[in-house]
Amino acid sequence: MKGIGVGVIGTGFMGKAHSVAYSGSASVFGTGLRPRLEIVCDLSPKRASQRATDLGFSRYTSSWQDVVNDPEVKLVSVCTPNDTHAEIAIAALKLGKSVWCEKPMSSNLPDSKKMLAASKKSKGKTIIGYNYTKNPAVLHARELIETGVIGDVAGFFCRYDVDNEADKKRPWSWRMSRKASGTGANGDILSHVISVAHFLVGSTISKVVGDINIVHLKRKDPTNRKQTKTVDNDDMISALIHFQNGVHGHIGASRVTWGKKCGLTWEVHGTEGTIIFDQERLNEIKLFTRQKKKSTDGFRTILTGPDHPFYKSFLPNGGHSLGFMDVKMCELQMLLFAIEHDTETWPNFESGYEVEKVMDAVDRSALSGKWIKI
Amino acid sequence: MKGIGVGVIGTGFMGKAHSVAYSGSASVFGTGLRPRLEIVCDLSPKRASQRATDLGFSRYTSSWQDVVNDPEVKLVSVCTPNDTHAEIAIAALKLGKSVWCEKPMSSNLPDSKKMLAASKKSKGKTIIGYNYTKNPAVLHARELIETGVIGDVAGFFCRYDVDNEADKKRPWSWRMSRKASGTGANGDILSHVISVAHFLVGSTISKVVGDINIVHLKRKDPTNRKQTKTVDNDDMISALIHFQNGVHGHIGASRVTWGKKCGLTWEVHGTEGTIIFDQERLNEIKLFTRQKKKSTDGFRTILTGPDHPFYKSFLPNGGHSLGFMDVKMCELQMLLFAIEHDTETWPNFESGYEVEKVMDAVDRSALSGKWIKI
Amino acid sequence: MKGIGVGVIGTGFMGKAHSVAYSGSASVFGTGLRPRLEIVCDLSPKRASQRATDLGFSRYTSSWQDVVNDPEVKLVSVCTPNDTHAEIAIAALKLGKSVWCEKPMSSNLPDSKKMLAASKKSKGKTIIGYNYTKNPAVLHARELIETGVIGDVAGFFCRYDVDNEADKKRPWSWRMSRKASGTGANGDILSHVISVAHFLVGSTISKVVGDINIVHLKRKDPTNRKQTKTVDNDDMISALIHFQNGVHGHIGASRVTWGKKCGLTWEVHGTEGTIIFDQERLNEIKLFTRQKKKSTDGFRTILTGPDHPFYKSFLPNGGHSLGFMDVKMCELQMLLFAIEHDTETWPNFESGYEVEKVMDAVDRSALSGKWIKI
Amino acid sequence: MKGIGVGVIGTGFMGKAHSVAYSGSASVFGTGLRPRLEIVCDLSPKRASQRATDLGFSRYTSSWQDVVNDPEVKLVSVCTPNDTHAEIAIAALKLGKSVWCEKPMSSNLPDSKKMLAASKKSKGKTIIGYNYTKNPAVLHARELIETGVIGDVAGFFCRYDVDNEADKKRPWSWRMSRKASGTGANGDILSHVISVAHFLVGSTISKVVGDINIVHLKRKDPTNRKQTKTVDNDDMISALIHFQNGVHGHIGASRVTWGKKCGLTWEVHGTEGTIIFDQERLNEIKLFTRQKKKSTDGFRTILTGPDHPFYKSFLPNGGHSLGFMDVKMCELQMLLFAIEHDTETWPNFESGYEVEKVMDAVDRSALSGKWIKI
Repeated sequence: MKGIGVGVIGTGFMGKAHSVAYSGSASVFGTGLRPRLEIVCDLSPKRASQRATDLGFSRYTSSWQDVVNDPEVKLVSVCTPNDTHAEIAIAALKLGKSVWCEKPMSSNLPDSKKMLAASKKSKGKTIIGYNYTKNPAVLHARELIETGVIGDVAGFFCRYDVDNEADKKRPWSWRMSRKASGTGANGDILSHVISVAHFLVGSTISKVVGDINIVHLKRKDPTNRKQTKTVDNDDMISALIHFQNGVHGHIGASRVTWGKKCGLTWEVHGTEGTIIFDQERLNEIKLFTRQKKKSTDGFRTILTGPDHPFYKSFLPNGGHSLGFMDVKMCELQMLLFAIEHDTETWPNFESGYEVEKVMDAVDRSALSGKWIKI
Repeated sequence: MKGIGVGVIGTGFMGKAHSVAYSGSASVFGTGLRPRLEIVCDLSPKRASQRATDLGFSRYTSSWQDVVNDPEVKLVSVCTPNDTHAEIAIAALKLGKSVWCEKPMSSNLPDSKKMLAASKKSKGKTIIGYNYTKNPAVLHARELIETGVIGDVAGFFCRYDVDNEADKKRPWSWRMSRKASGTGANGDILSHVISVAHFLVGSTISKVVGDINIVHLKRKDPTNRKQTKTVDNDDMISALIHFQNGVHGHIGASRVTWGKKCGLTWEVHGTEGTIIFDQERLNEIKLFTRQKKKSTDGFRTILTGPDHPFYKSFLPNGGHSLGFMDVKMCELQMLLFAIEHDTETWPNFESGYEVEKVMDAVDRSALSGKWIKI
Repeated sequence: MKGIGVGVIGTGFMGKAHSVAYSGSASVFGTGLRPRLEIVCDLSPKRASQRATDLGFSRYTSSWQDVVNDPEVKLVSVCTPNDTHAEIAIAALKLGKSVWCEKPMSSNLPDSKKMLAASKKSKGKTIIGYNYTKNPAVLHARELIETGVIGDVAGFFCRYDVDNEADKKRPWSWRMSRKASGTGANGDILSHVISVAHFLVGSTISKVVGDINIVHLKRKDPTNRKQTKTVDNDDMISALIHFQNGVHGHIGASRVTWGKKCGLTWEVHGTEGTIIFDQERLNEIKLFTRQKKKSTDGFRTILTGPDHPFYKSFLPNGGHSLGFMDVKMCELQMLLFAIEHDTETWPNFESGYEVEKVMDAVDRSALSGKWIKI
Repeated sequence: MKGIGVGVIGTGFMGKAHSVAYSGSASVFGTGLRPRLEIVCDLSPKRASQRATDLGFSRYTSSWQDVVNDPEVKLVSVCTPNDTHAEIAIAALKLGKSVWCEKPMSSNLPDSKKMLAASKKSKGKTIIGYNYTKNPAVLHARELIETGVIGDVAGFFCRYDVDNEADKKRPWSWRMSRKASGTGANGDILSHVISVAHFLVGSTISKVVGDINIVHLKRKDPTNRKQTKTVDNDDMISALIHFQNGVHGHIGASRVTWGKKCGLTWEVHGTEGTIIFDQERLNEIKLFTRQKKKSTDGFRTILTGPDHPFYKSFLPNGGHSLGFMDVKMCELQMLLFAIEHDTETWPNFESGYEVEKVMDAVDRSALSGKWIKI
């Protein structure tokens, strides 16, 4: 088994998730490249040192350039705030290094375009962390669609609702400001929806009409509890969509929906069947195709198992359940395979840019009140 | 218990459903007006005779005027094709009789407007058969919303998908023609969605942008199997919506979705909680409100029972389940109560007309590509 | 359509349920015998009079003999306390009348035996109100089993849990006394379980070992709140079972389980498939049989619809849901068919007596600590 | 962070699962002992070498003694066939090393007793791999029970059904022989059920009556397809149970139930509430406790999240789902904590032996037809 030196920039949830994936993937998959945890970066040197110990890195730094320039590092994880993705990713790509970049691609379309251009010139591979397309259950769904099991896709419907900001007593944060953060639910979670849409339908969204709803217009100012500050980006966002291949549908997202913890749900309606998924039960899809006898027709709840992509590297028996971290490991494995065999990932920066364009179009449509072609 | 003479026009599924409701309602509710099944009408005298026997009517006719003019009849059920609703309902209302009219109100907006005008001049009561608002579970949901249990409504999302026309081998029918039937999924099932929207949110839809998808553009000509005919109304329809009270959401319907049998599902997102419903499990709602301890938060599956509207007239213990026919009986009971006590029903022709206006606006918006104010 | 005069004895929940079924069944099924509601009996003449009005009977009485002896009455509903079933049913059968007797058959095995003997000598038809075997979903499950869709039955597992007595603050009642009521959860709800077992497996239980648990040994004396009284029959009951045909399984019931409203759940494990059912979602069964591709194997949720027994008499489209009262109407229809065509019902007094023997054996086994053959 | 040298004996599914857990646990938990993967053992030197590479061990061997005696190894994973557990575990304990032993404890009660004795004399810590008690959802359920949220436990009901041997065409294997493997479903999967029973109820099972069913008595001889061999251990097993603390219940297991992949389901009925769990949806429990208003009572589906044990070491947001491998990591973390802080694990060899006694009693009871006290 060959090794590959990796560096992680950013040590929040995603920095940790990448690191844990790097630690376990070779043991799980037993083939391909074995990551070596070379260096980790956090702006605070003290925290960087601590995280290197906790996460098993050989070295640490408080400067992202140290990671990118480290000669041992061939693969860079970008797990920093969205507005720093472009600079770091482009620097790594210029050095021919591969990049595992968290979603969304960047904080604005021009930056994403530059990242795309850099990736096209580089021999480094890229992948964006749209992990909801890496779940074996979802990969299986895509296979079913691709092989015509549900006929031609006719409709695609998806929402992603969470309750992160549902409590109206939560104070204002920079995430609720267009200036500081760009869009709200759009960039944070609708981006996932769009990645799933492109992946499952096998076509990109070509036309949208969007709508934005700010449910909690005023939030307490965290620096002065007697005052409030204005929220000016989307708590909820929705759009009607058309795909290049003629499929219609709608998508939506909310950051203020009580009780939804990871409420990414989608339905693909086909001319011969239907598939339904709920991320909160990520080990099952529901598939309807006709049985010989109409009296026994019904949605089948298919539990993920060894007959589905990736699963048997984790577990020999079906129904034993993968988790979020396992799915992240599948994402890594796709990237490592592409690096080793010089193939492509999905979504690389090219496919990721397609997602960004839709996010942008939904936002502009919501502000203008018009359908927008992409 | 006082009696009330009733007549039923039309003996298809709905004519039968009304008749069964008339037979049982007094026994179930034990109070109010007891319907007497006076006369039933079917265009075929032979079938009319047979249905009178089967359904327990004293008399029968093949002319709807006989029902409307029958001196014993004080309440008329209109269960005929949509394009005949206006004429019959208006005739009955002119005679001061009450009308239980199946949905949609009529086949076009001008007819519905005339029906509304007739109802305003008449002492007869009216109700339109939007039965999905009569289910005790849904009435309970409305109570929860009205009393602020989930705070202010922030979002409303609803689809109604069925597989009636999912099989592409099904031949063309008049239902698939704008000329013969008006809209497709819109009039047939989105109308239910809109009634549920108005009922639950407690406000009417004021602005829409719609989209139409004809999935099966050609169907076999039933009169000449070697040829096809063109489908020109909506197999699928979707819209983004705003309500008068500021709530946003989206709605949709499909008549071509495999596996969905009565797939009316809705979610109401509030500032303090969330309610979710699936008509295929009509005896439960899922309610999220916070518990004292966050660790025990979760959606509660509330089974309909004697603490909810109407239920205990049917059954003393919860979880024993009502069915579609029971809900139809609740609908009748609302109308009988209004007749007896001179109160109002929902949706009477006034509220029903509000539904019609939205259906019309969604259609026009889909054709024009623009948001439309109502 | 021919008529049949019916009389109902007892006007509680079941008396009402029978009456409502009598009112609607002809309209629903449109064939066979049309019940005429002749006479209703309640011990209180005042209540009898009121119930006659509410339920639509021509006459009323406070003496059950009046019903049984009424020359117009050919079918008698026995909806009185368990310890009166035998006397009434036997009297009716002696007059050659048919009997719709609520479950359990009686309050003790000798009485049930006498009822069985009377039924064998009578030309009257009998049926016992084990309604959980009349649901179209369950009838469909039986068909699947009978036709070998799940191979040979290997295991049968069923519980019926309710929360009727879950609150420990509920006072003592006669139902909690062996002397006054016989067994507890056994007679009241395990009896249903046994009927379902016999029906689905198509064989009777031949051997049991039982266990009893009295969870709340002391309850407040309702006549003197400062004192308590002892509960001496089963709050919970369980048994391991063998069937005549070699199937093994276990059954159980509880009247003290919080949150279960109609918690009758069963699983039939076969050598080629599995069926699962939950009465709280009575319009669905879950069926597992293998698909061609293992990767799409899964339990199918089959919604009851027009391809299943009885359903299309109620509704033309699947998934629209039947309720408890509809199922009771199916039960009546089976009896009316047997009366009209001189066929047999299930469970008639012979099959009902098989259920009684198992209830008795489970109780004796629990008290003796030994396996008991039946 | 201090390190601890670990060795793994056996490289099947469980050997791999332990190794993956060792690789990732320090990164996930960020505190405590960091495992160093010293040496791995497989009977085949070639496979041992390969697995050392794949799983990241420094050394390998084909002799388990090398692992136990390795001076760097302080913690030994026993992932070999059941009948070798005793010898290996006892040897390790004699050297004062800690042991992570897969379930069941051994292949017979006397061996398990020796293991227990060895553990009592050793300073090494022990834990048995009953992982279904380590899921944060289940730990949370135990907390709810322990703190009285559902009152006193009244009933415990659990089954574990899988389809490993459901296909009657699967050939005979040593697992189906009492001589070669001991019991069937009992040792393999009912053992898990018993561990869950003891853990959740907080008391051990004291009395059982058991039943065995061999569904497929003859299987094809894998060495001679023209002949069959006899299966003489349990395909299905069931028991009624009493606990020391007075709780009653029943348990069961099957290795021949189609469609169940990891079908471990349990219910705990308490005097103030109920908890329900299904391992195929391992990130949720269903909890019923009363709300203030009866009309909003219902089972709450609680998604595992950061307010539950262990979860936030993996993920910051609820509902993002843990998998089987994550739970195995929790199991390891419990053991590492016990080693570091000299506390106890559950189930150590003492608690594990309690499980073994119940397995043995159920088997003897099934063969003798009598209740057995433990």
